[in-house]
Amino acid sequence: MADSGSAVCVGLDPDIDRIPDRYRTSTVSGAAMVETFCKDVIRATAPFCASYKPNLAFFEALGPQGFQVFGEICAAIPRNRLVIADAKRGDIGNTARHYAKAFLEVFGCDAVTVNPLMGAETLEAYLTDGAKAVYTLTLTSNPGAADFLAAPLGDFPSQAEAVASMAARLDDEMAGHVGMVVGATRPEALAPLLKRHPKGGLLLPGLGAQGGDLQALIEALEGHEGLPVVPVSRGILFGSAD
Amino acid sequence: MADSGSAVCVGLDPDIDRIPDRYRTSTVSGAAMVETFCKDVIRATAPFCASYKPNLAFFEALGPQGFQVFGEICAAIPRNRLVIADAKRGDIGNTARHYAKAFLEVFGCDAVTVNPLMGAETLEAYLTDGAKAVYTLTLTSNPGAADFLAAPLGDFPSQAEAVASMAARLDDEMAGHVGMVVGATRPEALAPLLKRHPKGGLLLPGLGAQGGDLQALIEALEGHEGLPVVPVSRGILFGSAD
Repeated sequence: MADSGSAVCVGLDPDIDRIPDRYRTSTVSGAAMVETFCKDVIRATAPFCASYKPNLAFFEALGPQGFQVFGEICAAIPRNRLVIADAKRGDIGNTARHYAKAFLEVFGCDAVTVNPLMGAETLEAYLTDGAKAVYTLTLTSNPGAADFLAAPLGDFPSQAEAVASMAARLDDEMAGHVGMVVGATRPEALAPLLKRHPKGGLLLPGLGAQGGDLQALIEALEGHEGLPVVPVSRGILFGSAD
Repeated sequence: MADSGSAVCVGLDPDIDRIPDRYRTSTVSGAAMVETFCKDVIRATAPFCASYKPNLAFFEALGPQGFQVFGEICAAIPRNRLVIADAKRGDIGNTARHYAKAFLEVFGCDAVTVNPLMGAETLEAYLTDGAKAVYTLTLTSNPGAADFLAAPLGDFPSQAEAVASMAARLDDEMAGHVGMVVGATRPEALAPLLKRHPKGGLLLPGLGAQGGDLQALIEALEGHEGLPVVPVSRGILFGSAD
């Protein structure tokens, strides 16, 4: 963010059906089309953003070539821009270690989004290196968040707060950083989560297509006790698929 | 299961550091080694199992070649054996549709393991085809399950029971099948989950390395009201990484 002067995170969700027609030619495969499109997006946006968030689903849907294209995209992102693999992985033990190896070592990403459902131990494999981070799903912006994340869990008013509390503990105990994914459409939900994890970096998807209100978000963050006036210095990343 | 006379699910978790030495030669890449090893496992076990469960983490850790090898492994599994992609994916909307496309269409798997944390809507994209299934994480066998899955959620005695209840509803409403992943090390936990979702197919990982007790499991299932004596006819799949 210091290098770029920006807190924007550019989502790379290359839906092959929505890539502009000028990328389609009869001789080019879907995988090659996605690669060219993403590289153009990166070239056009690099001066204005701090990071990129490629969404693995869209690469996996390409089939056997999917991870090759993902690797090419990661390699095309400038070194002074962070790469957050939006993989939402969540697994234990040796399996978690292999996911961490894949994204943080083999593909050299800086951070991974993770799903904490199976417990704190699912995050630990990603947190052995002080230069790396995870963003744990905490409170998402979709209606289904009401089913589990927004429901009361044990002594916590919501599972989201239980996750924030766990994130704070791991962030403290482990070498790597633990941030939170909170839907940008829910500025009112930020205060209790930041109270549990005041130092947590934030990944706030939902501007653009999902209709998140940037001004409301900035106000919600400024209102929080202990937050500096300029959110950019707090490790806040705004993301959008558009 | 009718074809094979077996309820066994063979886990394919090819940890490159644990593949026998005879697969290592100076001229063979890690990806090629994993492919040969998995194909040998498939050839040796096909007569004795109903299904295979390749674990995506171990293919992703191979890097750019990972999904190519995964595709080769899926293609090497006999047509009358089910393929369960152990991907534990969990995401919404268009992203979920792309994960479903990747595993159920492009790679032609029969089922995917999914993570329900973001709500019921995260499962729906996988359930449009009556010949396909998901197994949703319900109660896992790791210690971290206590953090969230085994904790009381809203009006439910445990989040696991809330997931089972949601699984039953989706199984009823949608075309595809919704089964449950329950750790084989927790036979005592099965009764309340099956009460919520009596028709749910079960994927019970944790025999072998994790020390699950097959006899205890069979007894727990026989004791359940409405369960036939022979678990094999109920869609029960036993899995193990070993």
